[in-house]
Amino acid sequence: MNIGIIGTGNMGSGLGRLWANAGHSVCFGSRDPQKARDLATTVGGGARGGSIAEAAAHAQAILLAVRWQHIESAVAAAGPLGGKILIDCTNPLTLDWLTLLVGHTTSSAERIAELAEGALVVKAFNHIYAQIIHSSPRFGGQNASVFYCGDDPAAKEVVAGLIEDIGFDPVDAGALQNARLLEPVAELMVQLAYVIGMGTDQALKLIRR
Amino acid sequence: MNIGIIGTGNMGSGLGRLWANAGHSVCFGSRDPQKARDLATTVGGGARGGSIAEAAAHAQAILLAVRWQHIESAVAAAGPLGGKILIDCTNPLTLDWLTLLVGHTTSSAERIAELAEGALVVKAFNHIYAQIIHSSPRFGGQNASVFYCGDDPAAKEVVAGLIEDIGFDPVDAGALQNARLLEPVAELMVQLAYVIGMGTDQALKLIRR
Repeated sequence: MNIGIIGTGNMGSGLGRLWANAGHSVCFGSRDPQKARDLATTVGGGARGGSIAEAAAHAQAILLAVRWQHIESAVAAAGPLGGKILIDCTNPLTLDWLTLLVGHTTSSAERIAELAEGALVVKAFNHIYAQIIHSSPRFGGQNASVFYCGDDPAAKEVVAGLIEDIGFDPVDAGALQNARLLEPVAELMVQLAYVIGMGTDQALKLIRR
Repeated sequence: MNIGIIGTGNMGSGLGRLWANAGHSVCFGSRDPQKARDLATTVGGGARGGSIAEAAAHAQAILLAVRWQHIESAVAAAGPLGGKILIDCTNPLTLDWLTLLVGHTTSSAERIAELAEGALVVKAFNHIYAQIIHSSPRFGGQNASVFYCGDDPAAKEVVAGLIEDIGFDPVDAGALQNARLLEPVAELMVQLAYVIGMGTDQALKLIRR
């Protein structure tokens, strides 16, 4: 699958690398195209780099992995997104990560759906530490769960496949509005890692019997 | 330990039974004291029943396990709670459970702390299905995690012990304000069970390595 990655930070580089290694055609996009090209070279696996518009044009599925404060400019730079799958791993956090800026009556995912006209937005990976993506989804015999939500069943199915392709356990968390629940989950993980001081070598698993 | 249980529903009866079986002295309290006495007889393990005030007076730690719409009357009926541990397993849900009534800028736990003057409020068990409490915390080789949060370290330590006593895995989730994160987690579990249709034989586990 052709995957565009908007953002060259920890989340974008980590997921881009995993998808490239899983055989997908990945194009990184950045406000600084040279940075995206350099990242692509480091990642290997046939990955390419360029502008945000180039990454978006390349792709059937696009990961939006920028700081929340930049979602508006990133979506604008992407150009037309109608009919494309837009995977949102953002969280509406203050710069110190310790507070959610929106919630309860809306969410970052819903804001992105408003900005990206016609895009099929699916929230995913927002509660997974980048360090897990850069190391391994596996914890002994288990793999970390990735909750995802969205309003387009076909887009969700594609994203579930992309989650599974790189070794995580996809869990359907319902409609896009449930991002109002998944974004607090991400902040809970921030609190555990950085306020309680448990570090980032942990993840949530939905255990069943 | 002397434990009071306010509420004779699925959560109160389940946790009361487990704590009574673990050797704690449990007193159930209800607006209908006969109902609380009948429940105590069913539970056994030396459990008693009576009014809400009797259950509260009996206890060093009190579980508040009433529907959110009744928290105000239940706290009022409990009488003085100063210095007592008040375990809050409530969620501020609509009657169909599908929507949180408050969030982001406040939480049920914070509201209860305002109502119960001087009580040491600890949020816990709110994201665990009652069915898990009535069956088993164990999922193969693992036990379900119970996130708890509060502002009094000594009270939190007691609650962590009470969580562990009945076979769950306590996870410190920080300050009471983090109930704003744990209440959305509970609604996420409702969505998985009843909207996605996955049922209630599941729980969250914080996996670590």
